[in-house]
Amino acid sequence: MVPRYARPAMTAIWEPEARYRIWFEIEAHATEKLGELGVVPESAAKALWDWWATDPKIDVPAIDAIEAVTKHDVIAFLTWVAEQVGDEARFMHQGMTSSDVLDTTLAVQLAKASDLLLEDLDLLLAAIKRRAEEHKYTPTIGRSHGIHAEPVTFGLKLAQAYAEFARCRERLIHARREIATCAISGAVGTFANVSPEVEAHVAERLGLAVEPVSTQVIPRDRHAMYFATLAVIAGSIERLAVEIRHLQRTEVLEAEEYFSPGQKGSSAMPHKRNPILTENLTGQARMIRAYALPALENVALWHERDISHSSVERFIGPDATITLDFALARLTGVVDKLLVYPERMQKNLDRMGGLVHSQRVLLALTQAGVSREDAYRLVQRNAMKVWESDGALSLLDLLKADAEVAAALSAEALEEKFDLEYHFKHVDTIFARVFGS
Amino acid sequence: MVPRYARPAMTAIWEPEARYRIWFEIEAHATEKLGELGVVPESAAKALWDWWATDPKIDVPAIDAIEAVTKHDVIAFLTWVAEQVGDEARFMHQGMTSSDVLDTTLAVQLAKASDLLLEDLDLLLAAIKRRAEEHKYTPTIGRSHGIHAEPVTFGLKLAQAYAEFARCRERLIHARREIATCAISGAVGTFANVSPEVEAHVAERLGLAVEPVSTQVIPRDRHAMYFATLAVIAGSIERLAVEIRHLQRTEVLEAEEYFSPGQKGSSAMPHKRNPILTENLTGQARMIRAYALPALENVALWHERDISHSSVERFIGPDATITLDFALARLTGVVDKLLVYPERMQKNLDRMGGLVHSQRVLLALTQAGVSREDAYRLVQRNAMKVWESDGALSLLDLLKADAEVAAALSAEALEEKFDLEYHFKHVDTIFARVFGS
Amino acid sequence: MVPRYARPAMTAIWEPEARYRIWFEIEAHATEKLGELGVVPESAAKALWDWWATDPKIDVPAIDAIEAVTKHDVIAFLTWVAEQVGDEARFMHQGMTSSDVLDTTLAVQLAKASDLLLEDLDLLLAAIKRRAEEHKYTPTIGRSHGIHAEPVTFGLKLAQAYAEFARCRERLIHARREIATCAISGAVGTFANVSPEVEAHVAERLGLAVEPVSTQVIPRDRHAMYFATLAVIAGSIERLAVEIRHLQRTEVLEAEEYFSPGQKGSSAMPHKRNPILTENLTGQARMIRAYALPALENVALWHERDISHSSVERFIGPDATITLDFALARLTGVVDKLLVYPERMQKNLDRMGGLVHSQRVLLALTQAGVSREDAYRLVQRNAMKVWESDGALSLLDLLKADAEVAAALSAEALEEKFDLEYHFKHVDTIFARVFGS
Amino acid sequence: MVPRYARPAMTAIWEPEARYRIWFEIEAHATEKLGELGVVPESAAKALWDWWATDPKIDVPAIDAIEAVTKHDVIAFLTWVAEQVGDEARFMHQGMTSSDVLDTTLAVQLAKASDLLLEDLDLLLAAIKRRAEEHKYTPTIGRSHGIHAEPVTFGLKLAQAYAEFARCRERLIHARREIATCAISGAVGTFANVSPEVEAHVAERLGLAVEPVSTQVIPRDRHAMYFATLAVIAGSIERLAVEIRHLQRTEVLEAEEYFSPGQKGSSAMPHKRNPILTENLTGQARMIRAYALPALENVALWHERDISHSSVERFIGPDATITLDFALARLTGVVDKLLVYPERMQKNLDRMGGLVHSQRVLLALTQAGVSREDAYRLVQRNAMKVWESDGALSLLDLLKADAEVAAALSAEALEEKFDLEYHFKHVDTIFARVFGS
Repeated sequence: MVPRYARPAMTAIWEPEARYRIWFEIEAHATEKLGELGVVPESAAKALWDWWATDPKIDVPAIDAIEAVTKHDVIAFLTWVAEQVGDEARFMHQGMTSSDVLDTTLAVQLAKASDLLLEDLDLLLAAIKRRAEEHKYTPTIGRSHGIHAEPVTFGLKLAQAYAEFARCRERLIHARREIATCAISGAVGTFANVSPEVEAHVAERLGLAVEPVSTQVIPRDRHAMYFATLAVIAGSIERLAVEIRHLQRTEVLEAEEYFSPGQKGSSAMPHKRNPILTENLTGQARMIRAYALPALENVALWHERDISHSSVERFIGPDATITLDFALARLTGVVDKLLVYPERMQKNLDRMGGLVHSQRVLLALTQAGVSREDAYRLVQRNAMKVWESDGALSLLDLLKADAEVAAALSAEALEEKFDLEYHFKHVDTIFARVFGS
Repeated sequence: MVPRYARPAMTAIWEPEARYRIWFEIEAHATEKLGELGVVPESAAKALWDWWATDPKIDVPAIDAIEAVTKHDVIAFLTWVAEQVGDEARFMHQGMTSSDVLDTTLAVQLAKASDLLLEDLDLLLAAIKRRAEEHKYTPTIGRSHGIHAEPVTFGLKLAQAYAEFARCRERLIHARREIATCAISGAVGTFANVSPEVEAHVAERLGLAVEPVSTQVIPRDRHAMYFATLAVIAGSIERLAVEIRHLQRTEVLEAEEYFSPGQKGSSAMPHKRNPILTENLTGQARMIRAYALPALENVALWHERDISHSSVERFIGPDATITLDFALARLTGVVDKLLVYPERMQKNLDRMGGLVHSQRVLLALTQAGVSREDAYRLVQRNAMKVWESDGALSLLDLLKADAEVAAALSAEALEEKFDLEYHFKHVDTIFARVFGS
Repeated sequence: MVPRYARPAMTAIWEPEARYRIWFEIEAHATEKLGELGVVPESAAKALWDWWATDPKIDVPAIDAIEAVTKHDVIAFLTWVAEQVGDEARFMHQGMTSSDVLDTTLAVQLAKASDLLLEDLDLLLAAIKRRAEEHKYTPTIGRSHGIHAEPVTFGLKLAQAYAEFARCRERLIHARREIATCAISGAVGTFANVSPEVEAHVAERLGLAVEPVSTQVIPRDRHAMYFATLAVIAGSIERLAVEIRHLQRTEVLEAEEYFSPGQKGSSAMPHKRNPILTENLTGQARMIRAYALPALENVALWHERDISHSSVERFIGPDATITLDFALARLTGVVDKLLVYPERMQKNLDRMGGLVHSQRVLLALTQAGVSREDAYRLVQRNAMKVWESDGALSLLDLLKADAEVAAALSAEALEEKFDLEYHFKHVDTIFARVFGS
Repeated sequence: MVPRYARPAMTAIWEPEARYRIWFEIEAHATEKLGELGVVPESAAKALWDWWATDPKIDVPAIDAIEAVTKHDVIAFLTWVAEQVGDEARFMHQGMTSSDVLDTTLAVQLAKASDLLLEDLDLLLAAIKRRAEEHKYTPTIGRSHGIHAEPVTFGLKLAQAYAEFARCRERLIHARREIATCAISGAVGTFANVSPEVEAHVAERLGLAVEPVSTQVIPRDRHAMYFATLAVIAGSIERLAVEIRHLQRTEVLEAEEYFSPGQKGSSAMPHKRNPILTENLTGQARMIRAYALPALENVALWHERDISHSSVERFIGPDATITLDFALARLTGVVDKLLVYPERMQKNLDRMGGLVHSQRVLLALTQAGVSREDAYRLVQRNAMKVWESDGALSLLDLLKADAEVAAALSAEALEEKFDLEYHFKHVDTIFARVFGS
């Protein structure tokens, strides 16, 4: 976790105190059910909850000190709670194993993290939608291979981003479901010393599903799927970030990250306004992707479990979620305040001398009875002249003057093919698909 | 693609002829709709389908020869088809762009590949289920950290694998849905020269969903999610493979890959029977995981598209699906014919002198009023003696002879704690969760 | 391996026949030494080499057929050779284990592959050097963050690429050394049944180093380092490819991939000239990087060896080297034939109204006694006007007209700061560093 | 960075104060040379060093506060220094760009980190060597595929690890050389406003090489190679960790991580002694490997630079080096205190009824004139009986009783083949190769 790329709400989920609070709740809920089942006195849970009702401070250093001796974190925590609550606390954790607590806690943390990430996505989607509607009909050149192709609108670019992040949202909902399970199944998952009813009770209280079969641990294919999903979301962040970086290039300059008055772009070159936020997001996307790899390697734990996944998750649990939360929020800010330059978009659209309309002419020629191969040749020989003039010549003028073309298409017919609006007749259809009616 | 790790049905999907057949169908369906819409003569589609009805051979080398000149695969194909069908073929591809064909084709191929993979998973699940039921109550030791923990059954191990691959199946269904979309939206996705009705028609005929917004290409977050899902499945393959490799170790030998009579384990050591299939699967899992990475990097294409994803997909499209198909089938064979040794499982269970029952004693002491800390100390001091005797001493005997323990628990009470069946009382519950009633 | 991304010389290294030829040589060299040591009759090696001198065809299908029964490739090969050579062949492989042959063979293959890759790098370096010298003083704008910064020369860009690939060459030489080792150490590496002298003899004959300690296998950290090095080279390929893609963008167009007369850029847009080779290289770089991952996971083989690395290497051995060979050759072609447009470079340099000289003014102001903070403010306020005029205003004019600036710097002093040559005074120094005197 | 996996010396390198100290030194050394060259007054450097000689505290929050306004870290730092030093400080950074400072600083940090890692490796190598010599002739079974193969010594296992980490050490020395370069070349690397002599001076003072050609930034192929090298080292850590995990398995138990008196292995099972340190190292190795990926993606920066690498390096700079430092130290501790059980090794060696000697018998039969195929058959039919008896039968006894075998080899000849010492005759040779004479 890099502090400058971390926001407080997400960070809080991963702090020791937050973790211990979840531990306590799991233990207390379990003790409650154990009491109901007559395995432990009903007074045990009451003692735990009574203490909890006093809103006790979790003394992290004290627990750490115990762990330094026992070298076992859950035992350290239980010992500390017992010191606070007294004799009744000895009934806690009856028949359970550490992983029952640890894995269910991770599930709660990742579910909470997912909720924040879903909120982040909602804000991002809202920002993209607002800007998409604002620029629904702002003409701009569409580019394939970085080369001018045909006109699109800036709103369409954003509609694409919206659809992509809406898919990411769906994926995250699935991923959240993957990891939101509770396992209280004992040392090797047989419920030998703890009834499945305890698991069901704790799961219900924490808003989790029951893990159908665990083996001391919740199976790590779930977590692999979760972090792989975050990696995909990172890819989408990178895509939009790269789009903006391209648009801000000096020669393109169709959009710019917001540039605040006090900001300095360069220690040496005062005129520079650099797309540093989206470049930064590009790097963060690389990190979030990288975190999926060890999660995938964690799946093949040995037999009923080994603990190799644990050190990995101490890194990627916080790092992937905190960084993604930050990245989504940063991207939302970038989209929200993006400086968009429609005049420049139009200027770029015009700079190729009308080449972007070549395909329409090609089609018109075909429909006028010219063979596809001939039509291609006719358009290309004129297009090449325009291309080589760097947009100084006009494709429309050249075509009008080309006898073979003129034989097939009248001047009016040709002019009609250079109408920008023609390209936007289905923008509304696409918007309806993406944003609903 | 490594031929020895490839099966014919999956390989066929990726052969040039299969690809060209899909190309033709897309073009012909599109032409059909263009005819209905009056954009091209209705006779055009008829000519195409009439030729198709003759079941023509696709002349791959001829198409390659044209591509060598045009350096453009779709144009080469269209040219070749036009040579076969004649004049009417010039109406094909009207208003479309190459990617309309290429990306929709990839969707069809990945959907077909997914269908094969789903069949593979069904067969694997069936094999696992059969063996799980066979060994539902075969006792074996559960191990955490590679160390004996408490008893489980071999059926439970397999139930876990079943649940994991059932999750993989659900994930693959989602992943299939991700990539099964059709885009016929023209040069930059605006439908400028091809109506959305064409797209809807082709999608419906090919059993695909309509891509809500494309930008010449189908967005690559879909493919990233797809290959990431295959990577997760590979992780689960590795997990079961590693489990079997562990069980076959000389000192454990609770199960073995089937060993055919003519097989030689080693050129030097004739006694060796090695888990080579599962080791091989472990390596294949590494490959399938690796293929997810470039898919994730493909998401951030430039503007409306660049073609960097294409070379990646020429590798991973076939390689990931062919290898996963092979791996699933190989794993199914391993599970199906796995030699399982219940006597050896029992022998291993017994070799620790009853240490595996220590937790039950611990709990019984606690419930008999001993503090958790004291109970832990009492059990551990006896357990350590057994441990250091390498199982020659019996924990039950030592506990009976320990005065402090005897003060809390009678001999009968202690004996009851060493009952294996105790651990299996919830096996049925777990099986019901996993396999249904 | 994707045939369209494969060249014959590299592909040949990985074909079965080439592999069997290396197997034979290892066995025959070993038998030779075993004969000298008196372990086997000296006639054995003679019989083998006599047969070999007849330049026998390796009957791959026949060997495959034997393997189908024995399920062991080396035994199958030895059996086939024995069928050809006769009785004397039974002395082959004495005291050796399959991995002695397999791992040493892989070393030979990777060493040969490295030699081809080094030749590729030499050709690439030569092409870059030629173009660098050609454009040593061709002015072009340097860009950071995609934004105009200060002038560089196109030759400097290529000098950077040269230095980077020269480093890659050094790395590959190291990587080749990592994997060019020979192990003939028997079943678990103890030389129990085969003298270290055999290993030394075979190593010397094959031009390999002796592996100091092997454990049936050559340790896989060597291969991990090898494939990681290829991944780094891929990163450098991607960098130069991305540079060219950027330069070919419509708005930039300072360089273009060579465009052959028959080539069609788009099925729909005849004017398009797309940087498809470098986009293709970008995708290939992703693949070569991905292949490093399973190589890294291969390191942790179990005990003296497991065979999980083998399936991985059947993929990445050929795929990584064949693809890298192809990519280097393709990149060499791109560089060699790159269309470079100096006029356009100059036009782009001029388009910012002189903003690229802002830093020199900043420094001059500082040296004229203005505080750094004030100087920054003075330059920025004028620079911003130019920036917002999209290069229509001239920074030099504005500065001359700025009273505060004028107070510190005369018109002549200012003009001198806008001299392009100023920036190139150390080009020669850098070229000397990179290309030698 | 996870605090529990971090050690103070390595962590200190990455703290803000340490970074600012390097920044200052770079700026002051540069100013010194600029003074000598007459670009700035010689008094400037003197003022800086005079202040530095007072051992000033770096006020990190104050610098942060400035950065919050300027949004530029280097400008913030320069501003703060100027506030401390006074007027002379305005000559700092003359002609330089931020990256000159940032990249050279990263070089210094990574070089320092490498020095610590080299010390770590030296300590690890020393521990491995000590234990290798201690167990040079401790017999243990060698295993391939997890199956008993032939005898080795425990010292040989460690000799292999030594050789592997010695290679890692060499690789790290190379990797350190890769990143230990200094770039002071100005805004786009042309030295337009700062002489190459400044770079040479700073490089010499900081113990770095001069970067031959930089482009505002030091090229990131260097860093990619660096982090890829750390990833390879992580693979070797994982290999030794996995070896120890295997040896500690209940059924194997040939070695164990040291188990301190107060330590508790499980909250539920007091007898458990788990290999948690090596499992933990396995997970850490996964992380260190993962960090290489974004470093590889960082290579392809846009044009003369973009800043996407920066966020990546804020993570992986500290995370990869701190984690590797911790992992090497932890592994050293594990090796140093490893509990080794020679009796158990002997017991495991004996448990297969002599099967481990089968190859020697096979060879003896071949040398006695039996064909390889027949010899294989004879050994295998007896070996299979022993195998199926789970070691209860003795291979030697069965072979003596096999008439066909007895016809070729006398009882004495057979007995000689079952001598353990036979396998260790080249241990000394191997040790000499690995550890020197």
